[in-house]
Amino acid sequence: MSGRYTELKRECYEANMQLPQLDLVVYTFGNVSAVDRKEAVFAIKPSGIPYEQLKPEDIVIVDYENRRVEGAMRPSSDTKTHAFLYREWSDIGGICHTHSTYAVSWAQAQMDIPIFGTTHADHNTSDIPCAAPMADSLVAGDYEHMTGHQILDCFEQKKISYKEVEMVLIGNHGPFTWGKDPAKAVYNSRVLEEIARMAYLTLQINPNAPRLKPALIKKHYDRKHGKEAYYGQEG
Amino acid sequence: MSGRYTELKRECYEANMQLPQLDLVVYTFGNVSAVDRKEAVFAIKPSGIPYEQLKPEDIVIVDYENRRVEGAMRPSSDTKTHAFLYREWSDIGGICHTHSTYAVSWAQAQMDIPIFGTTHADHNTSDIPCAAPMADSLVAGDYEHMTGHQILDCFEQKKISYKEVEMVLIGNHGPFTWGKDPAKAVYNSRVLEEIARMAYLTLQINPNAPRLKPALIKKHYDRKHGKEAYYGQEG
Amino acid sequence: MSGRYTELKRECYEANMQLPQLDLVVYTFGNVSAVDRKEAVFAIKPSGIPYEQLKPEDIVIVDYENRRVEGAMRPSSDTKTHAFLYREWSDIGGICHTHSTYAVSWAQAQMDIPIFGTTHADHNTSDIPCAAPMADSLVAGDYEHMTGHQILDCFEQKKISYKEVEMVLIGNHGPFTWGKDPAKAVYNSRVLEEIARMAYLTLQINPNAPRLKPALIKKHYDRKHGKEAYYGQEG
Amino acid sequence: MSGRYTELKRECYEANMQLPQLDLVVYTFGNVSAVDRKEAVFAIKPSGIPYEQLKPEDIVIVDYENRRVEGAMRPSSDTKTHAFLYREWSDIGGICHTHSTYAVSWAQAQMDIPIFGTTHADHNTSDIPCAAPMADSLVAGDYEHMTGHQILDCFEQKKISYKEVEMVLIGNHGPFTWGKDPAKAVYNSRVLEEIARMAYLTLQINPNAPRLKPALIKKHYDRKHGKEAYYGQEG
Repeated sequence: MSGRYTELKRECYEANMQLPQLDLVVYTFGNVSAVDRKEAVFAIKPSGIPYEQLKPEDIVIVDYENRRVEGAMRPSSDTKTHAFLYREWSDIGGICHTHSTYAVSWAQAQMDIPIFGTTHADHNTSDIPCAAPMADSLVAGDYEHMTGHQILDCFEQKKISYKEVEMVLIGNHGPFTWGKDPAKAVYNSRVLEEIARMAYLTLQINPNAPRLKPALIKKHYDRKHGKEAYYGQEG
Repeated sequence: MSGRYTELKRECYEANMQLPQLDLVVYTFGNVSAVDRKEAVFAIKPSGIPYEQLKPEDIVIVDYENRRVEGAMRPSSDTKTHAFLYREWSDIGGICHTHSTYAVSWAQAQMDIPIFGTTHADHNTSDIPCAAPMADSLVAGDYEHMTGHQILDCFEQKKISYKEVEMVLIGNHGPFTWGKDPAKAVYNSRVLEEIARMAYLTLQINPNAPRLKPALIKKHYDRKHGKEAYYGQEG
Repeated sequence: MSGRYTELKRECYEANMQLPQLDLVVYTFGNVSAVDRKEAVFAIKPSGIPYEQLKPEDIVIVDYENRRVEGAMRPSSDTKTHAFLYREWSDIGGICHTHSTYAVSWAQAQMDIPIFGTTHADHNTSDIPCAAPMADSLVAGDYEHMTGHQILDCFEQKKISYKEVEMVLIGNHGPFTWGKDPAKAVYNSRVLEEIARMAYLTLQINPNAPRLKPALIKKHYDRKHGKEAYYGQEG
Repeated sequence: MSGRYTELKRECYEANMQLPQLDLVVYTFGNVSAVDRKEAVFAIKPSGIPYEQLKPEDIVIVDYENRRVEGAMRPSSDTKTHAFLYREWSDIGGICHTHSTYAVSWAQAQMDIPIFGTTHADHNTSDIPCAAPMADSLVAGDYEHMTGHQILDCFEQKKISYKEVEMVLIGNHGPFTWGKDPAKAVYNSRVLEEIARMAYLTLQINPNAPRLKPALIKKHYDRKHGKEAYYGQEG
């Protein structure tokens, strides 16, 4: 494989192949994309190809207007949602969509995932929002494009920053996550699945479990992301 | 191994061997069959043989009247159910039966699996029906033959097409699935298990979770199966 | 390894090694024994040895009065329960004890596992009984011996035959299973764990789920164990 | 690798590498330390390094005042909690912290794990305590140091001995466990996760499940740890 987007395709391919290894997908139920900001294109999984058959050269290159730039295959049916988010959120480098079990179950329940503990607070400063299902008129129109709108509207209404909360549930559907690169987007999908599972179990054990206190939310965010962060290695 | 049905046996064998790999069976708790419409026979797993011991040549060939056509072993105890469905539904090419955990649990609860999200709607246009348990008089008679009737009656009463919903739960027992070939029937069993698990979790999180809106059911079905389907690759 | 009980030890060892492979134990939480009726001794796992370290020659040979006949190690702390059951139930050839998750949870809930479906009925003709916790005076005495009594009393009070139901829960503790040989005892432990999990899920989905009808219990038992059984291969 | 603390680092490394193998951590969500009482230092995992990248020489050596004695990397962000416990509890040789699913869920529910059965009683003489969340003023201060205080205060208030109960939940956060060496601390984390899962399931099956009787708690503790202990091998 050679060509202009070889490295971008490989990065996208490797992030996609993490999904079955992390038990986040069965069959074709997911997709990851990787953006090249300079070229204003992104690489994305082709539609309906099982992970065990996927090869780096199958990855499709698409621009922000959803036009195929390179690749023989049809891109993921969710491509327009990815394009929309890359256009709107200029700081993200990768997007991941799965149908992972616990995240989907919260999305089907149409509920935000409450912030119950430090596992959640190490990664987000608020509940993980669940975007309300789309109006029928929009479903009938440019559905996947409108899914991008749905995410944007949800973050605006709830006054959440996509830089502090890198994950969302689409009501009735499932999760989208993002990050500085596709590997981080996949990491966020795995973390979201664990947070979703823990929050489910917490409520089964104690239906009145309280949310984490603001002081602890701030502490755990600052510990990892604040000016004097001391989690991880320097540099 | 050579002979008239070698290819059919191998297809049936490979579909059966998927079941333990997909965590859908333990020991002998499942069976897959593959039909040859031209020859009017089907290949099916022998009864009571653990998957780790199964060999392609063990597969039994049976006609629609349940007569063994080829093979030294006794066919699956569920053979008459398979025969009945092949006779009644001329468009199906494979059938799969398992005792997978979540699908069986819904069958034991004697409840249809509600259509809560797009994972479900990508594969079915309605709730997954649970056929009511059989009358005692029928149990005492030709039980496995009547199980076929039970499925057919259920689809007729609920006005569901077996082409749109390729899965059913038998009350108190477990799931049967089918498809254009045995691999698709197995795929449907795996998808059903995931849908059953997600629906269970959804109701635990929100006992009042609403069904998916008709507009979204239609959209997701059309996206994959409609005239202008755009999911997957062309051709 | 050579000697009088070499074959018995190997059979016992192999059955024990199935437990971690079937995800029924962590660390040392289980034990299997195998009886030699002619010699009136049984082979059992040594106490407190992790499965990954266990070797065939570590297996201990004990008689029905709990006296060590061969072997350098101390036998399982549950040895007296095994001895009691071998003495009382002359038709069994192997016994298995685990702390498998779902079976233990029902034992801790101190509830019989209701017969909800055919997976259960293919193996048992009634609910799986949970023996009530022991009186304090007995706990303080010969505890593991009394555990055998506890099982026997439970089956007598509930009028269940140990030949039709090869599994029991000890309230607050966990499951014991048995069978014609140690491999069947282990098989029954794996089946019990699955039945326990399905029954738990069934009640979560539908707290009013009805028990299986007597006609279906009889049908599934006869299909596998009756005079005209047609499940499995002949001979 | 050579040097004064080579053996201590290796012991710490091996205990850390058990965590992903036992399914107790994803990514970097855990850490194990090993103490050298003579040298008054302990070895601990570096902060934010994924397990698949961890090497023995990455392990950091720290003294009880949290000063780095050897190693190029920054030690775990939980180091001060470990140091505090080593200072206060002179009999422990290793400490383990994870975000394992069921233990975290009980911690988020802010509830002690009730002693429901012998699996629990084989390892602890009481409920597993959940320390109440920290006051906001302490969170803002020396947080990880105060987490050590939080554990100590919890054990003092509930009059529990850290020698009989080698595990604790930090409310809203997750579990810490300890033991005579780091391998035992990891063992306790695995056992805690199983106890937490069983207790959760027990309450789902029977919300009124009774605690284990004192006579059985005593019997199972003495059987393993009493003067006349007969569990395991002698010597």
